Amino acid sequence: MKRILHDLAGADPDLRFSPYCWRAKLALAHKGLEVETVPWRFTDKDAIAFSGQDRVPVLTDGERVVSDSWAIALYLEETYPDRPSLFGGAGAVGVTRFVNNWADTTLHGGMIRLIVSDIAAIVHEKDHAYFRESREKRFGKSLEEVTAGREERVKAFRETLLPLRHTLARQPYLAGEQPAYADYIVFGSFQWVRCVSDFELLDASDVVAAWRERMLDRFDGLARRAPCAAAA
Amino acid sequence: MKRILHDLAGADPDLRFSPYCWRAKLALAHKGLEVETVPWRFTDKDAIAFSGQDRVPVLTDGERVVSDSWAIALYLEETYPDRPSLFGGAGAVGVTRFVNNWADTTLHGGMIRLIVSDIAAIVHEKDHAYFRESREKRFGKSLEEVTAGREERVKAFRETLLPLRHTLARQPYLAGEQPAYADYIVFGSFQWVRCVSDFELLDASDVVAAWRERMLDRFDGLARRAPCAAAA
Repeated sequence: MKRILHDLAGADPDLRFSPYCWRAKLALAHKGLEVETVPWRFTDKDAIAFSGQDRVPVLTDGERVVSDSWAIALYLEETYPDRPSLFGGAGAVGVTRFVNNWADTTLHGGMIRLIVSDIAAIVHEKDHAYFRESREKRFGKSLEEVTAGREERVKAFRETLLPLRHTLARQPYLAGEQPAYADYIVFGSFQWVRCVSDFELLDASDVVAAWRERMLDRFDGLARRAPCAAAA
Repeated sequence: MKRILHDLAGADPDLRFSPYCWRAKLALAHKGLEVETVPWRFTDKDAIAFSGQDRVPVLTDGERVVSDSWAIALYLEETYPDRPSLFGGAGAVGVTRFVNNWADTTLHGGMIRLIVSDIAAIVHEKDHAYFRESREKRFGKSLEEVTAGREERVKAFRETLLPLRHTLARQPYLAGEQPAYADYIVFGSFQWVRCVSDFELLDASDVVAAWRERMLDRFDGLARRAPCAAAA
């Protein structure tokens, strides 16, 4: 049975930049599960209508269809219990959900205001109008106005990473001695930024930057090998 | 063998307001371990010199002395493995440390700016000068200036609780179906505020407020029964 992941792509079909899709791809890699990824754009709503909703990632695993990165992680953990655990036990799922919500709100809220105009430059032509209009409506200003002054504002963003920085100063991974889904959640966000922008979020001496390097190396460099604006 | 916890107190020796001490007291209760608490004030450095450092909580468990709330939690988990787990398994310790660091930075950073002038009013007379001078030096202004305008600023504080709010909208406790140390960490911070101030941090309809009520009820109302400014 085939395993397929619908994965957000840019104009370049190999540029896969969704933080949520990265969570799913890293979770699949952690479980040692092969997957065929299918490039998908924001306006390709019909292509994933079979999932009953309109966002990626959508995982099709044989006859099962699962959307939403968190639901995919839970599905993989339940369906493949003999593979390495994504959470390190049932007791860690609840707290990992907090990390997931921290990434979705605090972390993404900070990141998007630093890079959203760069995303507009890499999305597929058919997504241009949708992306710009929906995001400018959300922010109430042009995308260029949103990211203006980011060289100064990045300092405040770095302050919001304190919980992450203090944790990684004491242990190599967010999940502890070994990486687990908590790491894929937060790293997916950094990979998102890296894929769409050459704007550097971190100071080179930051322990978070060192952790990001370790995460880029995981799974034979799965994330490092991916085409990215920062790597160009 | 006797178990003793040096526990930060106010002018009223029964007013125990340290968030870190609350973490330790709730962790001990979770393990079902009796403890005698000893009121301690900021300037009582000599009374805990035996611990080799100058902050509370300090747990004396027979011949063992452990300071720092996180170290106390790890000590209790390791020393009393047959009691209910504080973390829900070894796999949850790493991610719970992230919650600990989130509380210590983001959460406390927001809370202290709303209530620090109220703390000055409840500390013991001998701590008055120490508390005011050390905190005014840290903030670079008077404590009353720090908390000025809090009725407006509390809205921004509530925004920083989004990761907590989204998590508690999906599960009854931060740790999942049952409370664990992650809950005691974050609740300890809310109990700190509650003990020193009648300023209300939360909207009554907030799921975080409902969770706080559940936590106040734990262990036969251990935290609810404690003398607190908010309960006065």
